Amino acid sequence: MTEKLSDTGRATMLAPLLENGWEMNAAEDTLCKTFEFADFTEAFGWMTRAALWAEKWNHHPDWRNVYKTVEVKLTTHDVGGLSALDAKLARKLDSL
Amino acid sequence: MTEKLSDTGRATMLAPLLENGWEMNAAEDTLCKTFEFADFTEAFGWMTRAALWAEKWNHHPDWRNVYKTVEVKLTTHDVGGLSALDAKLARKLDSL
Repeated sequence: MTEKLSDTGRATMLAPLLENGWEMNAAEDTLCKTFEFADFTEAFGWMTRAALWAEKWNHHPDWRNVYKTVEVKLTTHDVGGLSALDAKLARKLDSL
Repeated sequence: MTEKLSDTGRATMLAPLLENGWEMNAAEDTLCKTFEFADFTEAFGWMTRAALWAEKWNHHPDWRNVYKTVEVKLTTHDVGGLSALDAKLARKLDSL
């Protein structure tokens, strides 16, 4: 079962992400980060790898691509805020 | 050379697009359309095909994907508004 992150979960899971360029929107309870690449092929290649993980985990980002930039917003609609799935996808996006 | 669309170009090239679900933002001089698909794999599969054309033509959309929805915005930064390239890419996106 996916659940909204508890205070403890936030402290342990979100802290390393916030140190790695992710920003929280407290009002929306979302995690956001802008990824910059060398060009469009690098940006879209990264999105393609990310898309395979998102589909595999059935957890999809809200993302906008403008040439070599990808703005990502993560949240879990089913729980109305951040869940462990968002932290997991954020870590994967950082690692790709 | 890419040039900003003339009034004649707008009448001939944009009219059929506006009849096909595209909307003009006159202030920004952009063309926008939201594409809806059955699910994420259909949406991202379509984006992947579109990306190949965008890269081939070196003309890239500003687009946002949220699960099965893709919001597209087209403009030509080099000319500060719409050009024939935008109409060409819009027609391709409709045909994919």
